Amino acid sequence: MAKSTTGERALKLHKQLRGKIETVPKIPVRNRADLSLVYTPGVGAVSSYLAKHPKETANYTMKSNTVAVVSDGSAVLGLGNIGPEGALPVMEGKAALFKTFAGVDAVPIVLSTQDPQEIIDTVIRIAPAFGGINLEDIAAPKCFAIEEELKRRLTIPVMHDDQHGTAIVILAGLINAFKIAQKNLKKGKIVIVGAGAAGTATALLLYRYGVRDIVVLDRNGILNKKRNDLGTHKRTLAKLTNPRGLTGGIDVALAGADAVLGVSGPNLIKASDIKRMSKKAIVFAMANPVPEIMPDEAKRGGAFVIATGRSDFPNQINNSLAFPGIFRGALDRRVAKIIDDMKLRAAQKIASLVSRPTTQKIIPDMFDKRVAKAVASVVR
Amino acid sequence: MAKSTTGERALKLHKQLRGKIETVPKIPVRNRADLSLVYTPGVGAVSSYLAKHPKETANYTMKSNTVAVVSDGSAVLGLGNIGPEGALPVMEGKAALFKTFAGVDAVPIVLSTQDPQEIIDTVIRIAPAFGGINLEDIAAPKCFAIEEELKRRLTIPVMHDDQHGTAIVILAGLINAFKIAQKNLKKGKIVIVGAGAAGTATALLLYRYGVRDIVVLDRNGILNKKRNDLGTHKRTLAKLTNPRGLTGGIDVALAGADAVLGVSGPNLIKASDIKRMSKKAIVFAMANPVPEIMPDEAKRGGAFVIATGRSDFPNQINNSLAFPGIFRGALDRRVAKIIDDMKLRAAQKIASLVSRPTTQKIIPDMFDKRVAKAVASVVR
Repeated sequence: MAKSTTGERALKLHKQLRGKIETVPKIPVRNRADLSLVYTPGVGAVSSYLAKHPKETANYTMKSNTVAVVSDGSAVLGLGNIGPEGALPVMEGKAALFKTFAGVDAVPIVLSTQDPQEIIDTVIRIAPAFGGINLEDIAAPKCFAIEEELKRRLTIPVMHDDQHGTAIVILAGLINAFKIAQKNLKKGKIVIVGAGAAGTATALLLYRYGVRDIVVLDRNGILNKKRNDLGTHKRTLAKLTNPRGLTGGIDVALAGADAVLGVSGPNLIKASDIKRMSKKAIVFAMANPVPEIMPDEAKRGGAFVIATGRSDFPNQINNSLAFPGIFRGALDRRVAKIIDDMKLRAAQKIASLVSRPTTQKIIPDMFDKRVAKAVASVVR
Repeated sequence: MAKSTTGERALKLHKQLRGKIETVPKIPVRNRADLSLVYTPGVGAVSSYLAKHPKETANYTMKSNTVAVVSDGSAVLGLGNIGPEGALPVMEGKAALFKTFAGVDAVPIVLSTQDPQEIIDTVIRIAPAFGGINLEDIAAPKCFAIEEELKRRLTIPVMHDDQHGTAIVILAGLINAFKIAQKNLKKGKIVIVGAGAAGTATALLLYRYGVRDIVVLDRNGILNKKRNDLGTHKRTLAKLTNPRGLTGGIDVALAGADAVLGVSGPNLIKASDIKRMSKKAIVFAMANPVPEIMPDEAKRGGAFVIATGRSDFPNQINNSLAFPGIFRGALDRRVAKIIDDMKLRAAQKIASLVSRPTTQKIIPDMFDKRVAKAVASVVR
């Protein structure tokens, strides 16, 4: 018999489990004495107290340690707009990782609406029980306005992980890649292929880090100020990036580039493109499951450091290195907002955990138990 | 030192626990092999499948076993409108009971809105991950329209527990109380003090059971067709009940009554009222924490069977006897709606678990492990 694929085995496991997470009482309710403290009548004292002191809620309830993982299913994995039901197993998986890596209780919330204003309203209305909001797999460009508005209106941290979790880990990887290439990251020429959630957040975080020569491409080519087909967020990017005023496609962008970051789709970069880059070229091809360029082809093009989003090649750029620790720290220290400074320090911290970076190891392993703690420590 | 009260001990315990429930993975995620099945890349196969077959979601996800416990905090315990933060510890306690009594995973959702339409919209938008909706501590009369609209628009079971859970357990208790009083419940004269969520649902369920002489009172007296101060749901009740066309207060209502059910507030019934009732009077005084009449005073009035909502007297009428089993059965059998027939059968089933009812024991103990299973078995 043919060996079953990972997908087949995953389907089978999911059908057997019927859910990957469960809600468990922290203390047993065995008798009336237990009940009188956990529920009525004792709980009345807690309810009365919190009604008078709502800001104390996290000191007495699940709000202290619980994050909602919210998705409308509009941009799930590499699968696109597959809706809330399709998104649910991903959000459950993410909840399992939150608990496993950082002890955070996470509740999947998948929405039967994809309207930005309805998403915002819904999250605000369900927010009181949660200590943080992890937005997940929401399509660009609406993800930007949704996150911004929620950050403005809520007093708990809100983070769209596809943007910032990804950007943090990419920056961490770049710090070590530039180190072993013996180049100065801030003076590097960085090309970002893809101007969606991840590409945009990465460009902005690199800019905040101090990188000044960033070139971003969408499917129509290099973002620049002359293009009149750009929406708000791409116009912002076009102003902030591309200091040399380039126009054209990947070939133009990559000429002399030090690093290329693929956050787009399969097979968009060729070995001949890599050949146009500077010496010790850094190639992060992170489209999943099929990267922008396969590692062996990137190598043929002369790439020096190669990273992907996949676990079956070295240097997996995976946001599991960032989000558990970010929320762990935010919950522990009651941080109201995840600001850029925390993301920069998280990236530096993750990079620092690889004591001697090599071309085969620029980033810690996802299962390295130090990571979440280290990341949490920078959130203050 | 003075012994601390239950409330003080509950506050202390809640501060120590900071949340009574947690979200736990059903299987460990120890390494990349685990991860590839629970999360990426394997989960992609599950997501793709569910995007194509959304009706299969409960066969592969948490939806199979998870109920949202939704409250706007507008009518919490005996505390009234204390908002979402005040409601949260109650909903967490309820989630702990769901798991303890019936193995149901329950997620507290407390809302920052109290607007009926916004509550409806929000529940519909977050529904895809849940196999059922338990509405909780939402004030009358808006609770009726909210539940009705949600039942109409969702294909998962929706139950406002303050209405139906309470009504089921009251009916169960009445069945046994009438049995030991050797009276026919369907021919009994039943007075309900309180026309809120519980009183209304109880009147409707008793009517469905076949009781024809039901008299309901609100704070302005007996509901009847001549009153012009009644909203929609009370007008409906006035038409269905009060066949003798009574007008007046509790004294009038109780003259010759077989049973009085208090679902209102403290100390509204006096021993002299009970004296007006028929022989072998049945008194359920369920206001919490202070009943409509204390058991000793009811006894002075000549009451034969006395029940309260409290755990420190015999015959505790508590909806924990109903809701865990109702949702257990609904989830297991994929019931789309909780219909009256199921509630009637649940009440009969609960009553039947007391093999020899006495005045001191008309209802099973909350911790009787047979209850949830027995109730679940009637939901088909």
